[in-house]
Amino acid sequence: MAKSNRSWQEVAATAQELRDNSISRIYPPVPDVPQDLAKNVTGIPKQLLTTDEVLITETAPEELITALASGKISSTVVINAFLRRAGLAQKLTNCIIELLPEEALSRAKFLDDYYSEHKSPIGPLHGLPISVKEHIGMKGKGLNGGFVSWWDHKGEEDAHVLRILWRAGCVFYARTTEPQTLMHLETSNNLYGITVNPFNRDLTSGGSSGGEGALIGLRGSCLGIGSDIGGSIRSPAANCGLYGFRPTSYRVPVKGWTGTMLSEEQIVAVIGPISTSLEGIKLFLKTVVAAKPWLVEPSCLPLPWKNLELEHLIGQGKKLRVGVLWSDDVVKPHPPIMRALKEVVDKLKDVNAIEVTDWKPYKHDEAWEIIASLYFADGAKEETDAINASGEPWRPLSKFIIQENPYVKTLSIPELWHWTGRREEYRGRYAEVWNRTATRTGPNGEPADMVDVILAPVGPGAAPPLDSSKYWGYTSQWNLLDYPALVFPVSKVDPDVDKVEEGYKPMNEKDAFNHRLYEPEKYRSAPVSLQLIGRRYEDEKVIEAFEYIKSQTGLPFDSGT
Amino acid sequence: MAKSNRSWQEVAATAQELRDNSISRIYPPVPDVPQDLAKNVTGIPKQLLTTDEVLITETAPEELITALASGKISSTVVINAFLRRAGLAQKLTNCIIELLPEEALSRAKFLDDYYSEHKSPIGPLHGLPISVKEHIGMKGKGLNGGFVSWWDHKGEEDAHVLRILWRAGCVFYARTTEPQTLMHLETSNNLYGITVNPFNRDLTSGGSSGGEGALIGLRGSCLGIGSDIGGSIRSPAANCGLYGFRPTSYRVPVKGWTGTMLSEEQIVAVIGPISTSLEGIKLFLKTVVAAKPWLVEPSCLPLPWKNLELEHLIGQGKKLRVGVLWSDDVVKPHPPIMRALKEVVDKLKDVNAIEVTDWKPYKHDEAWEIIASLYFADGAKEETDAINASGEPWRPLSKFIIQENPYVKTLSIPELWHWTGRREEYRGRYAEVWNRTATRTGPNGEPADMVDVILAPVGPGAAPPLDSSKYWGYTSQWNLLDYPALVFPVSKVDPDVDKVEEGYKPMNEKDAFNHRLYEPEKYRSAPVSLQLIGRRYEDEKVIEAFEYIKSQTGLPFDSGT
Repeated sequence: MAKSNRSWQEVAATAQELRDNSISRIYPPVPDVPQDLAKNVTGIPKQLLTTDEVLITETAPEELITALASGKISSTVVINAFLRRAGLAQKLTNCIIELLPEEALSRAKFLDDYYSEHKSPIGPLHGLPISVKEHIGMKGKGLNGGFVSWWDHKGEEDAHVLRILWRAGCVFYARTTEPQTLMHLETSNNLYGITVNPFNRDLTSGGSSGGEGALIGLRGSCLGIGSDIGGSIRSPAANCGLYGFRPTSYRVPVKGWTGTMLSEEQIVAVIGPISTSLEGIKLFLKTVVAAKPWLVEPSCLPLPWKNLELEHLIGQGKKLRVGVLWSDDVVKPHPPIMRALKEVVDKLKDVNAIEVTDWKPYKHDEAWEIIASLYFADGAKEETDAINASGEPWRPLSKFIIQENPYVKTLSIPELWHWTGRREEYRGRYAEVWNRTATRTGPNGEPADMVDVILAPVGPGAAPPLDSSKYWGYTSQWNLLDYPALVFPVSKVDPDVDKVEEGYKPMNEKDAFNHRLYEPEKYRSAPVSLQLIGRRYEDEKVIEAFEYIKSQTGLPFDSGT
Repeated sequence: MAKSNRSWQEVAATAQELRDNSISRIYPPVPDVPQDLAKNVTGIPKQLLTTDEVLITETAPEELITALASGKISSTVVINAFLRRAGLAQKLTNCIIELLPEEALSRAKFLDDYYSEHKSPIGPLHGLPISVKEHIGMKGKGLNGGFVSWWDHKGEEDAHVLRILWRAGCVFYARTTEPQTLMHLETSNNLYGITVNPFNRDLTSGGSSGGEGALIGLRGSCLGIGSDIGGSIRSPAANCGLYGFRPTSYRVPVKGWTGTMLSEEQIVAVIGPISTSLEGIKLFLKTVVAAKPWLVEPSCLPLPWKNLELEHLIGQGKKLRVGVLWSDDVVKPHPPIMRALKEVVDKLKDVNAIEVTDWKPYKHDEAWEIIASLYFADGAKEETDAINASGEPWRPLSKFIIQENPYVKTLSIPELWHWTGRREEYRGRYAEVWNRTATRTGPNGEPADMVDVILAPVGPGAAPPLDSSKYWGYTSQWNLLDYPALVFPVSKVDPDVDKVEEGYKPMNEKDAFNHRLYEPEKYRSAPVSLQLIGRRYEDEKVIEAFEYIKSQTGLPFDSGT
């Protein structure tokens, strides 16, 4: 950590200047936005961009690559449109740390020239714009992880995952915000301020990949890269009405990112996609896995992407068995979440080949105790030092997760082993719960025909008001278990329908806090999302199961912005 | 750890009494062995057992299960023969902690009755005897991990791997010795004494699965279960002229074993097979993986066993590329090992479809520094406490690996992260070395057609004289990298051929120690083995590559005992 003679405010001013400067270099210039913004700003880009720009930026990634691969549109045109909309997204939600107009347009020109010459795309992502969370390193660019004192750190090389996507033909054009410490389910830091939710600026876009959430929510990107150790991909995806996927550990390479606790392995942080479409999620995963990242980054597992063709199996008599987690029995979800669950379940019950059962939560409070004891095993020394080195203030949610968190302790090695053992033991018991749903025994005595996927809330409510995202349980549960989880949009909060549950008796203090938080009007227009969860390394199954569910239910029920 | 009022000598006497008593219950009684034993005792069982017993116990496991599955032989007859030979093996090498005559014969009777009734085997291992290293728990039986103070610990349930093999129809009949701390490449503890090598009783049978090595080496078992965190399967397999396999981590379940550092994950200890045949190794692995252990033990990876049919690929123009590691440039192997390597390489060079190249070692000294710093991260407090609790003496190799090991330190969490990072970084560099052997680039820019497997020594010599197994590098290297490795027999030490290399200038102190150790006559008759190593999770490739090599070279070159 290099000591700077400048105050943290001076460093932050420099950071913001660099950001603003990068946006000012976009041509035609990014339009100004109204001074007096409505809470919901998702309609504004349509008013300020050209028809073509709106059309391009609202095209799903799989359609964009088809258009690019067939020469119907040039990468330059696409990148220009996304640069302009990303610039607007910054003005509306504060989600950008820098845009890369020169690099992106130069890359786009190279790809367009390549296409002119070869009459074919350079790779499966030819010309596709991809946005990237700040802490995933780019060679020679800043790499601060949300800390002012890390401002002068630079990426030594492009992160491994970026190199793979680059080889596949994509264009990097936008870098997005993240919170101080990377350990909030919101996005605020002292370098760039607070990122807000485009559907309701009083609410958080989520975190820690909240810059991606806001940017993609505003269609300033159609595919972005986030990371997740407790919900950091899923919270912004859910809060902003997007698809987001937390893969099982060691499927997507991570080398070249920054952050604290980098070699911590007890709870494995992962990189994954956020997108406007499910196909965008698949595009990312399939491209990354096809490059065999394990050859370069040996912690990655040599698991090719499997096409299970679940839809055919279901056609041949298999039932898709969906367990529904209505509540984790620690904090009950707000009425909009319960409504969304009910709406989906009602539709699922009408599908012949789907069997819906309730999924009883198994000691999710214990799961939090274990995961929270394994985070910050150095007593959060690394985060504390990184914050204090510059004199920057502690953001409220940094205080919450570190200073006010009873599970943050400096562990000894035997204590670390103790909690690791507790983790394994809990995972074993959860597996047993899952195995008990078996309806038959396989040829080698193993349980078979079990529940396939769990349908669950992503959080105890829609996007929370700023600085109130204090309950991680609905996402961190699956990090502890290392289960893959797909977030998908369902609906929007409707204060006329989603009334407060009167007379509700909270189960505990956390539940009471969450219950008090809900005032319908505050959450107006906030996206309501759910997640589908599978067992460890059943990433493909989760995605294919959701494809089937989507095809049968017509999800999302409210796709308007 | 329960405190006992008894001296460690009294506890040891009880342990040995239990063992001797279990052997005394075998009928017909296990013959006495000559008082004045030759160094090589491998010929003795043939003299003392019946012709049928010799025939049965010298049958390979794959042939035994065929005979059992077709009803040509009963499980009772097989088990009786192995019990008798295992009893003899104890008298000759001290490799047993207890035999299980009643349980095994009752199980055999059950299986025989099952077969009579159904005219078919109960599972793929119907009636097959399997021996088990002590620390792999059996319900209600002692579970001491080589510590006197743990003598009264009991297995709460059968270990997961045992439950799987049991369901497949096998019979457990013998439990085998292991060293104090489980962290020697030899087998001696204060409960049972020293296990010696059946080919030369002045030498070690290896360790820590050295009970299995000696027992299987004497054909008192045809398939046994060991464990490996630094060479503990491979050292006894090599020292006793057997096949032994260290799988990549998390393919074989481990739940239900005991030991120190149980929830340590930086260097993953694994369970694997030792057998008289290569088919025995495959039988074990395929049976275990087919039971989908990941459903019960979530740390296991859901990787089905893949039949690569490498032989067919090679027939279709693919060359098998073998890299040869002649020395790790830290400690040069003794002449018999160099000769074995040369003999194998000479044969390989004659095979058209095999390409042989030298494999330059990449900083194996650094690898040892890293792995040795990650072992015992609690400063070996757990081992120290477990030894000192009973007052038992420190065995020489416990002193060596703990008290005289400069890398044993009590790590803080940041220090643990540091070494974990060093491990990942080293693994990345080793992968790069491997990737550089690529002869072309794959469709997604990845390296392709690289060296397939590395042929290497298993240790810096054949089975060492007792208490001198101090160099782990040839095995621990692959634990650090988490590469699968198959040990196979090649030859025997021949003092007339394997002369001391005169005028050799040692590279360092470790090399000098090893060089001094070699006096040809001391090693007479000791098996000489090698190992074949693949990249992480290429377990199947290693085995199929060896099958091809075996078919082309006629290995082993000396199969006599």
